Amino acid sequence: MMRTGREIRVRTYPAGSVSPDDFEVVEVAVPRPGPGQVLVRNTWTSVDPGLRLRLRPDAPSGYFTAFALGRAMDGIMTVGEVVESRAEGFAPGDVVWHAQGWREYAVVDAGAEQLGGLGTLTRLDVDECEPQWYLGPLGGMGLTAYAGLYVVDALRGGETVWVSAAAGAVGSLAVQIARLMGNRVVASAGTDDKVDWLRDRLGADAFNYRAGNIEARLGDIAPDGIDVYFDSVGGTHLEAALSQLRRGGRVAMCGSISEYESGSAGPRNLFLAVSKDLTLRGFRGSSNLHLMGQMRRRMTEWLRSGELDYRETVFAGLQSAPHALTEMIAGRTAGKTLVSLG
Amino acid sequence: MMRTGREIRVRTYPAGSVSPDDFEVVEVAVPRPGPGQVLVRNTWTSVDPGLRLRLRPDAPSGYFTAFALGRAMDGIMTVGEVVESRAEGFAPGDVVWHAQGWREYAVVDAGAEQLGGLGTLTRLDVDECEPQWYLGPLGGMGLTAYAGLYVVDALRGGETVWVSAAAGAVGSLAVQIARLMGNRVVASAGTDDKVDWLRDRLGADAFNYRAGNIEARLGDIAPDGIDVYFDSVGGTHLEAALSQLRRGGRVAMCGSISEYESGSAGPRNLFLAVSKDLTLRGFRGSSNLHLMGQMRRRMTEWLRSGELDYRETVFAGLQSAPHALTEMIAGRTAGKTLVSLG
Repeated sequence: MMRTGREIRVRTYPAGSVSPDDFEVVEVAVPRPGPGQVLVRNTWTSVDPGLRLRLRPDAPSGYFTAFALGRAMDGIMTVGEVVESRAEGFAPGDVVWHAQGWREYAVVDAGAEQLGGLGTLTRLDVDECEPQWYLGPLGGMGLTAYAGLYVVDALRGGETVWVSAAAGAVGSLAVQIARLMGNRVVASAGTDDKVDWLRDRLGADAFNYRAGNIEARLGDIAPDGIDVYFDSVGGTHLEAALSQLRRGGRVAMCGSISEYESGSAGPRNLFLAVSKDLTLRGFRGSSNLHLMGQMRRRMTEWLRSGELDYRETVFAGLQSAPHALTEMIAGRTAGKTLVSLG
Repeated sequence: MMRTGREIRVRTYPAGSVSPDDFEVVEVAVPRPGPGQVLVRNTWTSVDPGLRLRLRPDAPSGYFTAFALGRAMDGIMTVGEVVESRAEGFAPGDVVWHAQGWREYAVVDAGAEQLGGLGTLTRLDVDECEPQWYLGPLGGMGLTAYAGLYVVDALRGGETVWVSAAAGAVGSLAVQIARLMGNRVVASAGTDDKVDWLRDRLGADAFNYRAGNIEARLGDIAPDGIDVYFDSVGGTHLEAALSQLRRGGRVAMCGSISEYESGSAGPRNLFLAVSKDLTLRGFRGSSNLHLMGQMRRRMTEWLRSGELDYRETVFAGLQSAPHALTEMIAGRTAGKTLVSLG
């Protein structure tokens, strides 16, 4: 009997805010794997801010190509279990990751590069951790947090580092890595609950960016300025950082979620980079795969010792994925946003 | 008899375009030097784009403080001859530089740091060069061009480097240094005369940025993209660069002359820094004084061998300095803009 599974497709590119109505859930026949292919039953799938960027016909260039309309969405990280394998090195029962998420079953070409190498089908060691951690601290999120601090030389410690969207998947890891490496960390988020968590559990000097002028709040909490800004927000956050950075300061830019729905105007005070010798460093986690090994060694140690607090917001069932995305963009999730597929 | 000399003062901060009417020329008594001071008769004074930034009450922070109204303008590089010295190490007849330009005579404190060290009173070796070269290739201009390429690792060669405002004082040096170090150089300027000079004399692939869409012109001339952008213009130039930079590309930002009179909107496509792993590096020449030695050694060699073409636009007499500034900002000068004081 033919196996069937559900997948999510983009129906329309949203004009303003994304809504679950922009998607549809479709039941499709699951093909058998061909030679060199593996059939995976996905168990966890990822919900990332970057997905919003790909819901635009004019997605920015680079790796962020738009999702095609009316087909399964490609290039979303997911974890699953091998059901049937016709590829060497993979056997039924193996836990793997790959980049064909937002669907219940996927036929994956073993060895085909996905997401710049990050999402290529890979067996995962789950002896001492939960499988979904590979979508969080042990995967792309951990790599993005770690690599961002690495590329702006913020792992040596002794500086003041500001992390925005600090209760999010990447932000909460960046906060903790920066602190564990010996920096003073300032963290901002958009609800008082998140701010409490950042302060009480993650040991950061935290503030709610919605409670007044960001630059003034930052100035209060770090009157001597900041050395590093870890940016996944852009907009007025980035302007506040440029204003408060000390001479020789650095910005690690991994996204600008504040601009994904509204478009970007660009920081009006970029000239301060000249007058203060600042460096703005854009980066993607997947451009830093060479750091995956050292990141996982450190992260695993911190997770085992309990020094790293890892938080998830889990939505159950594939049909909840679009809702999970809109909740995350609205700032109503904390930590890593995931969909469990059972 | 009391010696007198003329100095230029800012009368009003210009509202839109700067005009000679914003300045006044005043004849003042020249004081005698006190202990530790030197009286210098200035012979050449510098006209730099950065001066425009300081003609604003809201000058950006960093080293760019606004000029005070109604007094001699401080912090402008100048070359002159010592007339009288009460400071050790300086004698009448010495050729020196310091940062009290835009006036005919200056009493300078020997040893007092000026312009972050760049403008501190210093004796100059003019055995084998013209004194005013220290306001061009052997001074802050040379240092800015050299340091900009240095900090974005563009001295190793083998890449495609775009230099804007390429017929200007810094730009024309950056073009030539980049080329002499083994890069392919794309150069842009705003008149056909300048473009001809850049192509025929400086060996660059040059285009007139006023003759059509900048991004399209850049795409035509460098269809495989650029690796490095040397920016002293900002605005749509910077946006075109972000669009055309290859993965891992770098921007050396030393100013944004296009925005000094109109204000800045910020690059609307800064997100491309994330998707393409770009680095934007703001810098000031004076933050890189440690490179002055190696810069001068290389520059002197190229000047002697005739490999480096150095161009000046000279205005005669102190009273012409405001006019020289407006001409330079309007793009009607080429190479280093100077005022000779005789």
